[in-house]
This record gives sequence, structure tokens and C-alpha cells, in this order.
Amino acid sequence: MTKLFTRNRLAVKMSSFVARWLVSRLFRGLTHTQVQPVRQLRLARPLSSFKDVSSYSLRSHTCGELRAVHAGEDVSLCGWVQFQRKQLFVTLRDSYGVIQLVLPQDKSHADIKQTLAHLPPESVVCVQGVVQLRPIGEANKAMATGDVEVSVSKVEMVNKSKILPFQIRDFFQVNEHLRLKHRYLDLRGSQLQNNLRVRSQVIMKMREFLVNTHGFVDVETPTLFRRTPGGAREFVVPSREKGKFFCLPQSPQQFKQLLMVGGVDRYFQIAKCYRDEDLRQDRQPEFTQVDIEMSFVDQRGVEQLIEELLEHAWPDGKAPLKLPFPRMPYKDAMEKYGSDKPDTRFGMELHDVSDIMRSSGVTVFERLLKDSPGNSVQAFNAKQAALHLKTKDIEKLQDVAKQATSKGLSVLQVVSGGEVKGPMAKHISAPCKKALLQELQAEEGDMLLLAAGEHLKTCELLGRIRVECANVLETHGVHLRDPDVFNFLWITDFPLFVPREDGSGLESAHHPFTSPHPEDTDLVFSQPHKVRSQHYDLVLNGNEIAGGSIRIHNAELQRYILEEVLKEDASVLDHLLEALQSGCPPHGGIAIGLDRLMAVLCKTDSIRDVIAFPKSHAGHDPMSGAPSWLTDAELQPFHVRVQPGSSSEL
Amino acid sequence: MTKLFTRNRLAVKMSSFVARWLVSRLFRGLTHTQVQPVRQLRLARPLSSFKDVSSYSLRSHTCGELRAVHAGEDVSLCGWVQFQRKQLFVTLRDSYGVIQLVLPQDKSHADIKQTLAHLPPESVVCVQGVVQLRPIGEANKAMATGDVEVSVSKVEMVNKSKILPFQIRDFFQVNEHLRLKHRYLDLRGSQLQNNLRVRSQVIMKMREFLVNTHGFVDVETPTLFRRTPGGAREFVVPSREKGKFFCLPQSPQQFKQLLMVGGVDRYFQIAKCYRDEDLRQDRQPEFTQVDIEMSFVDQRGVEQLIEELLEHAWPDGKAPLKLPFPRMPYKDAMEKYGSDKPDTRFGMELHDVSDIMRSSGVTVFERLLKDSPGNSVQAFNAKQAALHLKTKDIEKLQDVAKQATSKGLSVLQVVSGGEVKGPMAKHISAPCKKALLQELQAEEGDMLLLAAGEHLKTCELLGRIRVECANVLETHGVHLRDPDVFNFLWITDFPLFVPREDGSGLESAHHPFTSPHPEDTDLVFSQPHKVRSQHYDLVLNGNEIAGGSIRIHNAELQRYILEEVLKEDASVLDHLLEALQSGCPPHGGIAIGLDRLMAVLCKTDSIRDVIAFPKSHAGHDPMSGAPSWLTDAELQPFHVRVQPGSSSEL
Repeated sequence: MTKLFTRNRLAVKMSSFVARWLVSRLFRGLTHTQVQPVRQLRLARPLSSFKDVSSYSLRSHTCGELRAVHAGEDVSLCGWVQFQRKQLFVTLRDSYGVIQLVLPQDKSHADIKQTLAHLPPESVVCVQGVVQLRPIGEANKAMATGDVEVSVSKVEMVNKSKILPFQIRDFFQVNEHLRLKHRYLDLRGSQLQNNLRVRSQVIMKMREFLVNTHGFVDVETPTLFRRTPGGAREFVVPSREKGKFFCLPQSPQQFKQLLMVGGVDRYFQIAKCYRDEDLRQDRQPEFTQVDIEMSFVDQRGVEQLIEELLEHAWPDGKAPLKLPFPRMPYKDAMEKYGSDKPDTRFGMELHDVSDIMRSSGVTVFERLLKDSPGNSVQAFNAKQAALHLKTKDIEKLQDVAKQATSKGLSVLQVVSGGEVKGPMAKHISAPCKKALLQELQAEEGDMLLLAAGEHLKTCELLGRIRVECANVLETHGVHLRDPDVFNFLWITDFPLFVPREDGSGLESAHHPFTSPHPEDTDLVFSQPHKVRSQHYDLVLNGNEIAGGSIRIHNAELQRYILEEVLKEDASVLDHLLEALQSGCPPHGGIAIGLDRLMAVLCKTDSIRDVIAFPKSHAGHDPMSGAPSWLTDAELQPFHVRVQPGSSSEL
Repeated sequence: MTKLFTRNRLAVKMSSFVARWLVSRLFRGLTHTQVQPVRQLRLARPLSSFKDVSSYSLRSHTCGELRAVHAGEDVSLCGWVQFQRKQLFVTLRDSYGVIQLVLPQDKSHADIKQTLAHLPPESVVCVQGVVQLRPIGEANKAMATGDVEVSVSKVEMVNKSKILPFQIRDFFQVNEHLRLKHRYLDLRGSQLQNNLRVRSQVIMKMREFLVNTHGFVDVETPTLFRRTPGGAREFVVPSREKGKFFCLPQSPQQFKQLLMVGGVDRYFQIAKCYRDEDLRQDRQPEFTQVDIEMSFVDQRGVEQLIEELLEHAWPDGKAPLKLPFPRMPYKDAMEKYGSDKPDTRFGMELHDVSDIMRSSGVTVFERLLKDSPGNSVQAFNAKQAALHLKTKDIEKLQDVAKQATSKGLSVLQVVSGGEVKGPMAKHISAPCKKALLQELQAEEGDMLLLAAGEHLKTCELLGRIRVECANVLETHGVHLRDPDVFNFLWITDFPLFVPREDGSGLESAHHPFTSPHPEDTDLVFSQPHKVRSQHYDLVLNGNEIAGGSIRIHNAELQRYILEEVLKEDASVLDHLLEALQSGCPPHGGIAIGLDRLMAVLCKTDSIRDVIAFPKSHAGHDPMSGAPSWLTDAELQPFHVRVQPGSSSEL
């Protein structure tokens, strides 16, 4: 096969066209400024956007670039047979588009016709021929190359394809397991092709902005690191030293701070990170973040950097971003949207109706409010939802509520004449009803959803219900969230510490290196639970796509927080504490979740659609079969063995 | 501390200078084309090289950029106290240079003097002041900023440094373990700062060439993969599924070939790779390669791509590269230099003197040549070595020889009148001596080194002796290898298969996906040991800095080689074999060893000097203590435990 290919290549070299092709190969030996004019003649594209995607290769052109201007040119094309028609036409596809090939019908070229007309689809061929304008009336305006076709004078069958498990068609949806098992076929489709190419371009623009314009240094940090405190989700890697293990870090956090101590004062890295966790929420065991850290910077400085970075890297064809992005304190986000990553593309904001319900006649609300000042009643108005939601939809919302809390969800439908319907309707007093309708600006056809209980929990619950309600409404054709709208939002002033789930003291809301809010520094020593942090999240359409903070650069403060507030063993962080004492500059940074950002940009719900070779929901690679069984012999060098006992394979 | 810093910042904001500073921050809100003219006025640098390394930060300028043109400007600087003089001057350093600060001597500013004059070195401060020309005669021409100094009007002590374990001085050499333990201090030195920044720039230029000029797509491939055949050096990562393990791949080889099948026909990635091996030969368990693969390309196409890539990415200030790079078949390299990665910066090439020695009177040579036609006698002329090498040097060379083979090394010193001295001298016949001197163009003062035995082994031995001899000569002040000369060389036509060390059949010389040389394809099925491959290495000054090949795209050929030639279990590669049947284009690629390339470019012998946080010789991170002990509880989730028995800690 290889030999045939080469013999044929030799033949190719005989042809007059290839003589020219060889010359163009020689030209590529020159610098690009020299070669571009030569190539430019050939390309119907401005030099500015010039990308020589055929350089160094066996093709003279891509299938997708041929236009009327190329008519009369000898071309050499390589690609996949898309389909054949009447032994006359073959559509040839490469990664840049499709072109119609015309097969010679004369006997002397019977071999060409024989080869091309009967190859299985997705077979790989290289052809030579002449570009010609299509006959009058036969141009295909729906096809970028539809004005022309290539009359084939030579063909080489490079690799015959077997019949594939599924067709390479964008609209063709097959189950994801099969797609992942044959990922290399899925990648051939224009959807994943586009996603991977857009991802590459966005990353490149980010690099140009960071390195070329702002002097950031691209530094690689190790992925074979040591166990860190609270690193419950770290993968472990046995070393050849008996009993000693590396860990795959969840982020380069410690290293980037050490780089600041080391005077690499503007660092970034497109970093591979690892998290060994439940994959159900569309997460991957390995993921990618744009990791950035700066010295001598404040919170607004980092925010501005990221705003301008995203503005610069924003893909062509999308509406330009409006800077600066709006900012919202964590507390406001929770009380207005019941979420620290609110989707602000639609309304239905929460309202605190505690005062209205305090003497509403609705005993359950009245009692809850009496029970504790920490309780509240929250409500939002699902505009016109009463016209769309069916009983089962409402039951679904109530199920969501029940899963989250023992206390249920109260639903009121607004009917004509300022009246309301629903289980609660007959209990609620007239003035309360009036006040409620007014507060929520309710009109006929609206649906009011209320919940009560501990303040923050109740906000969170209604926040979930708000999103769920939007999901349901959209299934009924009500368009609330425009995928072409990109609402960025900074969430700030997070709490520095939160109570541990087991109630035993405090833990870091984000990580122990986050600096307290300058106005709250004294509170760290007196009332740590009240301290706000200098952490910031960037939210896009309901997704947290970046998070960062100003870090602690003072060793005493860092040690106090680790030992006195978090009650953690600081000894494993001795190297960091010593670094802080060794002339550590003030510094801060951020990490952009690249997979999630790209998923939003590519308008897909799953990050698996923006990753070349993702793992399945179960964390498997159905293509290669990873993870796989290892024998004791294979484990021997690492001094570990599998625990005896029954297998727990999923 | 944080609070002080902030209160001070507030104060700063009062000052008239900071008003302007805030304005410049606002300007940064505009696009760079808009902001550059504003900034350009401030910078004594051409716009072309414009990098705003102070954007988004608390400083207005870097310490290193101040020049006479800035005289009279209010500036805000942040950096490290380098040293203090007479309570009058302080040298402030940041990552961009040093500047002299002048302390006010009047009582009203006693606090400034008090703070700056008595801080421990390497403490971090932020200062404000006015740039002024130094008094006549006090300019320091040795200092880039030596024409000016900054008269300090405000200072903030940001972070006091403790006394450090070693000083931040370039010339200051401390033992490597201490340097690695405090890597963040070592990084502050200008040597590592420069290495990391040059590395970042070279990578960026490579990306511009590949992505912007030639349309390559930057694709991330997984590092949690499955065990591959012959992957003896792979790290294993236990999964949460009992008995199942991921592996950290030694390269993205399979994934990049699958990308070709998937139509990503121009792929590259700066890829982190893993190899669990003996680190003695200056290797790292994780290393970085520039990984490239193309479809529809031949060997020369890949070579030309890499030549022009390196030409484009070549750092400023180094002699431009001459393209194309010379090429040499593997066989010639072995016979001329005794190595497949020859350093061609110096001569001392090997000569086959078998015919001369066949009847030389030197019985050991004569017998060896009679014993087997596979034996040969090799020699090279170490020019003028007799004038420099001491007896112990020669003994050292002989030790190297003895370690490699039972057969020793014969040394002849050329003295006046065409005579030779040495143990062999009295045995060697006159005509043979004459022929030998002629063949090796020997002159008085030269030293001739001879070895005999199996042909290739003898060439390899003398190749090692040749390099060792150069090392010794350079210790005596003979300069053979100029670090400013960069000799690239393509080595081609490697054997596809080599005999297994245990003599049981053949194994791949590189990897099983390498395509046979088109002229040798038929030999695969008849005499596989004679097949040349389409593998190519790029050698730079005796280092292999890149290697690649045209791959097999034919499933039948791939299966035959795996099963019939290599006798391997092809089932673990079923996914790849199936991919080859699914319309796989012809493809090839290469991987550049980035760490080694940067080490040569930065003129250091150790790749540890071009990696931010390298592991030690023993594979440890002395800073964090990785790898570290894990408890059974920590291992529980992975269903593994450490083998019972005594510890084998290194």
C-alpha cells in the first residue's frame, strides 16, 4: 500500500502539473514574506487572513477553497469520498470543505471511473485534475465551491474504508457511547471539527493578548505533586519508592504563588488539572483551565485583565462584549436569584415577602416566621406561566422542592380580577393577597411561587425552582434564554469561611490562601464567620466560568488562618509559609474554566463536545478501554497491590 | 498587613501622581491601539517591541525601564530591596531590572529613611518618587538605568523578608539540593528568570508559526490513558473501580494518529509526557514535547516544516539558521561518528582501518578480523591530543572502553619523523604504520585511538571515546565545541526493527507505528531485519532534540507487523487498527523535546535549568517533599494497599 502510494507519487512527479507543484514546494523553502505573494496569486483571499493550510503537504489546494478564480488551474486534492452519483460525479471532502469531481467518461480513463465510482464512502483518495466552471445553470449556490468542479485526470486510491458503524453527518445523532467508541469518526463531522478549531483559535488569541501585549510568561508547572490538605479528590500515583505517592493536582495554585515569590510576576498557563470525582454533573477527571497570577495587583486589576482578555479572544461573528462587566455581591446574588451563578438573561427575580406574609392568615408561613428571625418567605413571579404549565409540570417543580427541603412549594395562579387560585388561596387574607400581587407585579396568567424556611436555604431552593421553571417553560416554546446573548457577571464579596457540613467549626469557602477583604481583616481574629473574602467569580449565562482571588502574602496571617481558624495541620504547607517569609509580593490571580467557556461559546450543553477525547459519564474511555486491569506483575514495581475482596466494578 | 497596604493605597490615591496613574488605568479600558500612543510617550522604546508589562498593576513603571527620558516624572515602583548604602541609597530590583533610590535626608521624611535603610534585603516595598538625572559624573554606565535615580517621596513596607538561606546572586553557586528546596529564591536570579522567559517566547513563536501561518490546530489529548504494550515505563493511576488503572502516557502518539483519522489534518500540542525511569541521565519523570502530526505529507514535508518552524522561533541575538539542515543516513552516522546523534561541531571522525590492520603484525587485530567478517578495526585521530593528555587522562579513556567491552583501546602517540609510541608500536609493521598515519592524516603531536571487534559495537565504542576525548581536551583548554554554534543534522534511514536484547526475535527500533521505507516494504514480509524505516531524528550539537516518522496507515500492514514480526498482542490496539480501516489518511509527524532544545539554547547542561520546578536526580521535589507517604485510609478509595514487607526507600 505504502509502496503503491509512493510509486504513484513518482508517477505524479512526471506530470507537468506536478512540476509546478514541486516548484511551489521549493518556494516554501523561502521565508513566508517571500512565499506569500506567490501563493496569493492562487488564493482568492486577502493576505491579511492568509493561512497556508496546504504548506508542506501533498495537496496543492483544499477541497473547500476552490472558486471560479481557480478555473483552468491544475490542482492536486486529497480527501474522503463523501458520495457518488451516476458514475459521473463524486463529492470529495476534506477538513476545509467539499468539491464536486467529474469523472472522465472516455474508455482511455476507464480506470479512473472504475476506481472512484465504486469506492466505499469515507475511503481516502488523492486526485489530480483541472478546475472548470460548471455548465450554465448547474452551479450550486448552496455550496461554497458550487460554481466549479474538478475534471479528474489522475486518481490514487490511498486507503479503502470499511463500512462504518455510523455515517459522518452532522444531523445524524447516534447514541453517545457508540460515538465515543468511534470518536475518530465523530471528529470528522463538521460540528466537532468546528468546536476544536474555535477552541484552538480562542486559546491562541488569549496567548497573544497575555504574552505579546502584556508580557505574561507561559510557565509549565509540575503535575506530579504531593498530597495537599483537603485534597480528597486527588488522583494518586504510586512512585517506585515503597509507600510513597505523587498526586495529580487539582490546580497549580501553590506553584503559581511560588512563582510570584520567585519574581515571575506575570504568569499564565493553559493548565491540565485533575479531579477524581463523580462525573454526573458533566465534569471530566482531567480538565483545562487558563491559569493566571500577577504580583502587585488588586482585585479590580485582575477583573479588568480578564475582561479585556475575553474581549480580545472573543470569536469573530459574535456580538462584541460590553466592558466593564457588571458586578454583584454574593449576598445580593443569593437574595435576587437564589444562586451564586445566576443566569441574568431572564427575570423572575426572588422577592422577600416575609413582612407581607407575617400576618397573612397562612399559618405555616406565620409560624415559620415566628419560630426564628433567621427564617424568611421568598417568592417569584413566573410571568404568564399559568398559561403554559400543565399540572404535571407543577408537580415536577414541587418534586424538586421536596428533594431539597421538607418544606414544600406554594403555587398561586393569578386569574382575572386580581384573584388567585391554588391550595393556599382560600387561607390568604385579602390585604395580604393585594400586597403580594403588587410586590410581584402580578397580572392575569402569571404564576406565583412561594417557599419559606431558613433564609439562605429558601433563596437557594427558589433559585433552583426559578431555573427549573425556565427549563419547563422553554419546553413549551417560551424562549427565555437566548443562546446568542452572553451575560457576564462578576460575583464578589463571598464569605471567606463557611461552617463545615458536620458543624465542627469553619472551612474555607474556596481555599485557605484567599485573602480576607481589607475592611474585614480585623474580624479574622474576632468573628471569622463574618469575614468577607477577596474572592471573585465570573459568571456567564448561569455558568461559573472563572474564579480567583487576591492571595494572602503575609506568613503570620496565613499560619493563623490555617492553624487557628481552619484547625489544619500547617506542616504540609511549611514550604509555602517559608516562601511567604522570603520576600513574597502581594499577588492575586484567577483561573478560567476553559472547557465550560468553550461549551457556552459553541452553544452545547456538554463539555464533552469541546474536548477531543473526553471520558464518558462513568469516567471511561470506550475507545481504548481505559481504565484497564493490571496484573500483580505490572504493579510490582510500584509496591502496591489491589486489595483482596470482591470486585466493585461499575 | 493587608489592611496597612490598603490604607496606604488609599493614601496613595490622594496623591496628585496617582490621579494620573488612575487615568492611565482608565486608558487601559480602551483598546490597545488606542492606549499605545499614550503609553508610547512614556516609554523610550519602539512601538514594535511594545509590551505593557505594567498594565493592570500597582506600579506605573518597572525598575528596569527608567531612562533619562523619564526625568521629572512621578513614578510608582514595586520590588525587592537589593542592597542599601550609607542610609542614602537603596537599590530596588524587580523582574525587569534595578534602579537606584535616593532617600530623603530631611527630618520631615525620617520615616522613609528609617524604613528603607534598615529593611532586611529581599524585603518587598512599594515606593513613589520622582525620576531625576544623576549628578554630573555619578552616572553608572554599567547599569541600564544608571543615568537616573528616583528620589523617594513615599514608601510602603509590603512584606519584610527573613534572612534567606542563600543570596540572590547569579554568580552565587549553592548546592543543588538547597537550591531546589528553595526554588522560589533560585527563580529570582537572573539566570532562571531569563531561561523561563526565553522558553515562553520560543514556544509563543512556534505557536504563531503553526497556528497563524500554517493553520495547525492546537488540540489537548488525555493524560489519563490505558496501559499500552511495551509501556514498561508508564506511571499507573488507580481508578475508583477496583483493580482498574489509568496510565500516564509517554506521548500522545495514539491520539494524534486518531486525530488524523478524525480529519484534524494539521495537529500540534505542547504536550506533557510521562516516563517513570532512572533519572540519572538528566531526565525528568514529566517532560514536555512539541507534538506535531500532519495528514497527506511525506518525510521531506515534515522535515521542511520543522526547519522553518525552528528558523521562525529562533531567539533574537543568535546567529540565524542555515536551511535546509544537512541529512545523514543512520549507517553513515554510526560509521563516521559512532553515534546516531553526532556532535558535528568538531572532527575526529572514525576511519575503518580493517584493511590496513589485516596484516599489520598486531596479532589481536589480525585474529579478530579473521574470526568473523562482522568484525572491524576502527580508529580516529585526536589532533594534537598527545600534547595535552596526561597518563591519567588516557587511563580514563581506557576505563570507558573497558566498561563498554572486554576488548580494550589501543593508543598511539605520533612523534617526530613519522614514528609512533605506545604499547602497540613495536608490533606494528612499517608499511602498516605508514598507511595508518596516511589514512588518519596524522602529524606529530596527534594521538591515534584504535579499537576492534563487532563492527557496530566498535563504532559505538569509539564514538563514546571520541566525545570523552573532547571532554578531556576541553578541560585542558582546547576549545572544540563552540556553544554559540548550532549544528542541526537530520539522521534518516534507521532500521525499522532491531534484535531484542534477549535475542528472542525483533522489536521496533522506535515504535510499532513507524512506516517502512517505501523501497523496503516488500522486505517486511521476507527479511524484516533489513527493512529501513521512515523514521527521522533531528540532532543538535550531539543531542537528539526531535524524532518522528511517517506512520503506517494500512491496517493489514500494521496488524502483520504487530502480530507476525513483533509477536505482540494486537488486541489492546484494536481501536487503532479499526481506525486505520475507517478511512485513515496517510500521515506523519514529529515530536520536539522542548526541555532539551531549551537547555541547548540557554547554554546549560541540565534540563533542570529550563524547568520552573524540576524534580531532583532522585525524582524528588525537595521543596514540597513529593512523593510523600499516604495512609491506608487515603488509599482506601482506590482499592490498593502498599505491599507488606520492608521499606525500599532510596
